[in-house]
Amino acid sequence: MKIGIVGYKGRMGKEIKDLFEEKNHEFVWGYDKDGEYFQDKPQIIVDFSLPEVFEKTEEYVRKFNVPLIIGTTALQDEQFEALKTLSKNVPVVQSYNFSIGIQLFLKMVDFLKDKIDGWDIEIIETHHRFKKDKPSGTAKMIKDKLGKDVPISSLRLGNVSGDHVLYMANLGEVLSVSHRALSRRAFAEGVLKSAEFVINKKNGYFTFTDVI
Amino acid sequence: MKIGIVGYKGRMGKEIKDLFEEKNHEFVWGYDKDGEYFQDKPQIIVDFSLPEVFEKTEEYVRKFNVPLIIGTTALQDEQFEALKTLSKNVPVVQSYNFSIGIQLFLKMVDFLKDKIDGWDIEIIETHHRFKKDKPSGTAKMIKDKLGKDVPISSLRLGNVSGDHVLYMANLGEVLSVSHRALSRRAFAEGVLKSAEFVINKKNGYFTFTDVI
Amino acid sequence: MKIGIVGYKGRMGKEIKDLFEEKNHEFVWGYDKDGEYFQDKPQIIVDFSLPEVFEKTEEYVRKFNVPLIIGTTALQDEQFEALKTLSKNVPVVQSYNFSIGIQLFLKMVDFLKDKIDGWDIEIIETHHRFKKDKPSGTAKMIKDKLGKDVPISSLRLGNVSGDHVLYMANLGEVLSVSHRALSRRAFAEGVLKSAEFVINKKNGYFTFTDVI
Amino acid sequence: MKIGIVGYKGRMGKEIKDLFEEKNHEFVWGYDKDGEYFQDKPQIIVDFSLPEVFEKTEEYVRKFNVPLIIGTTALQDEQFEALKTLSKNVPVVQSYNFSIGIQLFLKMVDFLKDKIDGWDIEIIETHHRFKKDKPSGTAKMIKDKLGKDVPISSLRLGNVSGDHVLYMANLGEVLSVSHRALSRRAFAEGVLKSAEFVINKKNGYFTFTDVI
Repeated sequence: MKIGIVGYKGRMGKEIKDLFEEKNHEFVWGYDKDGEYFQDKPQIIVDFSLPEVFEKTEEYVRKFNVPLIIGTTALQDEQFEALKTLSKNVPVVQSYNFSIGIQLFLKMVDFLKDKIDGWDIEIIETHHRFKKDKPSGTAKMIKDKLGKDVPISSLRLGNVSGDHVLYMANLGEVLSVSHRALSRRAFAEGVLKSAEFVINKKNGYFTFTDVI
Repeated sequence: MKIGIVGYKGRMGKEIKDLFEEKNHEFVWGYDKDGEYFQDKPQIIVDFSLPEVFEKTEEYVRKFNVPLIIGTTALQDEQFEALKTLSKNVPVVQSYNFSIGIQLFLKMVDFLKDKIDGWDIEIIETHHRFKKDKPSGTAKMIKDKLGKDVPISSLRLGNVSGDHVLYMANLGEVLSVSHRALSRRAFAEGVLKSAEFVINKKNGYFTFTDVI
Repeated sequence: MKIGIVGYKGRMGKEIKDLFEEKNHEFVWGYDKDGEYFQDKPQIIVDFSLPEVFEKTEEYVRKFNVPLIIGTTALQDEQFEALKTLSKNVPVVQSYNFSIGIQLFLKMVDFLKDKIDGWDIEIIETHHRFKKDKPSGTAKMIKDKLGKDVPISSLRLGNVSGDHVLYMANLGEVLSVSHRALSRRAFAEGVLKSAEFVINKKNGYFTFTDVI
Repeated sequence: MKIGIVGYKGRMGKEIKDLFEEKNHEFVWGYDKDGEYFQDKPQIIVDFSLPEVFEKTEEYVRKFNVPLIIGTTALQDEQFEALKTLSKNVPVVQSYNFSIGIQLFLKMVDFLKDKIDGWDIEIIETHHRFKKDKPSGTAKMIKDKLGKDVPISSLRLGNVSGDHVLYMANLGEVLSVSHRALSRRAFAEGVLKSAEFVINKKNGYFTFTDVI
């Protein structure tokens, strides 16, 4: 397929471009802070950039009238609203994390959440020093899934792709669930899976859970 | 209630005795390598000793005709058979681990096991230097629940009460579930719960999962 | 020896009392929020309470004219000054952590600190839910030893005795040093060692590093 | 410089080739299981392959008369002897691990080793599923540095670049030192550093500790 990427010069943008090209897809359109790259009309747009760019993404999705896969973190409520509106015309896949392991993690949280009443809960997320937002979107997804307000500690260390740990403790024991992304490639593969999932859909709002 | 303990001089035996006494139960009978302690007929027998002593335990449970809670690890197949037979006359609770966290751990394994096809799996268990059997009964429970043969690494470190970690990895990520017992007291509390659960039962074979 | 304990009803106070009695020392004097316990004049005073009580501790040390071992965390600058003054008359051992492992930890930090220029550094400390101060005194000792301002994340989980982790990362790797106290007994043993160290000293200001 | 690589089609071989080319060095010669690649005479040979290939490496180093950097693990005693002999004519850098963090790790082990008498010691190493030898060369370096025989547990998980943990425990506490390589690039950078270090040397036997 012909792919377009918002933030194609960023870390995740490059990773996605590389993986799609490796799988014989074609990078034909891009948008980054120094402007637009145009070679052909894309069949799908992927956005792993920053919330500030969201309006541009929205504009181009409407213009090309193609599916959108968005992994940008720290989106605002009104931007989620805009995505919902957009999804009436084109299919949209939104997630803060495109790894299978995190999906399994979230399902375990869902199972545990009403069995740990009175336990202490803590979340730690660790990412590379270049990550701008805190806490990570994934840590927020874990917290939301728990359905209660729990402390999140954010560590920024070297080039760590992304670690998440959920600790749960009563007075006698500590239970924990952990996830460690070994490279950004794991996320890029989730994006490819999502692209294959939406490419022939008419419209609709999906999460990565729907994809897998 | 009046409690009897096989292995009452051992680490877990003492922990159980202390907790029951703290909760106003009475330790009235015991058996250990240097013989029998008798003050009164017990209403329940708890065994956290060694497989070699199993026949003695069986003998006394029959003699007193009381419920048995057994946490001895490394039991043989024929000893499990004997427990099943015993359970026709008295209630029996058998588990390699009496903590709530491990029960939740096992349920997560149950959920994960058919979603991690092709992933690499490793189990690590860490216990105090005095633990004689390897791997731990709990590690074996985790392996059994996975339903496949996976490597178990056993570490023996100082006075660690008991740590278990299950690692699962595909090429892009590592997911793990961990449990750390903070003290033997966590297990003693599970035994007390089990005692309250079986004290008025007629007979039957139970696991700690049935108790909670 | 005859021991006096400020905060003798607290967690650490009880642990210290138990260990000293086990080793045939005698608990003869105590002070806690509901007043004084007096059976005999102590030969040494141990304080593992709160900074608010410090003036009382000071008063009794002067009154009995005996050595002081103080492990109270979150002391104020003027309280450290008072300890220095006190140490002209009696020996004083002050430390935020009385475990041997933490002493080794600090020496490793001392070795590492000028070899990790430009690395990212993070400290995590985890303690039981009853711990009132944040971050732990030990985490502060690690930070001070590093000689620079680094983030400290504080987790409060169940009945964890005390975990400390120092992470150091460049873009290619993460190095870490960790310490986990298995029980408060490890600290009580450090206090006993300190007591044996100071009991025959005339005066002076010591840390636990001097003791071992 | 003009670089030659034994095992240039392997994981580490490719990583080294990529980094050197990125830094404007030139890959001019290679050897792999399907034969030789020759474009020009190399100024240095790097070998990250398998012990079975060692004789070939030796042959080519003699033929080209250039420095050798060798990171192949599981070398035999006689192969080490051959390296020593070789180093009389050309400079040789041998190490099982070319990361700076591991060098710091080893120095901490050196500091700790005579302070943990009577402690329990365990080493865990985790690597990707493709790693053929067990335990890792780095784990062996840690064991050698300790100067005593300690258990090493080897885990093989997904695409993990390389984790090493050294646990030390007395009855009250667990101290540990950990290292996690985030990517093979960390090692490739150590190779580049080594190349710059030996390129103008006449001869001699060096380890990566000498390089940094």
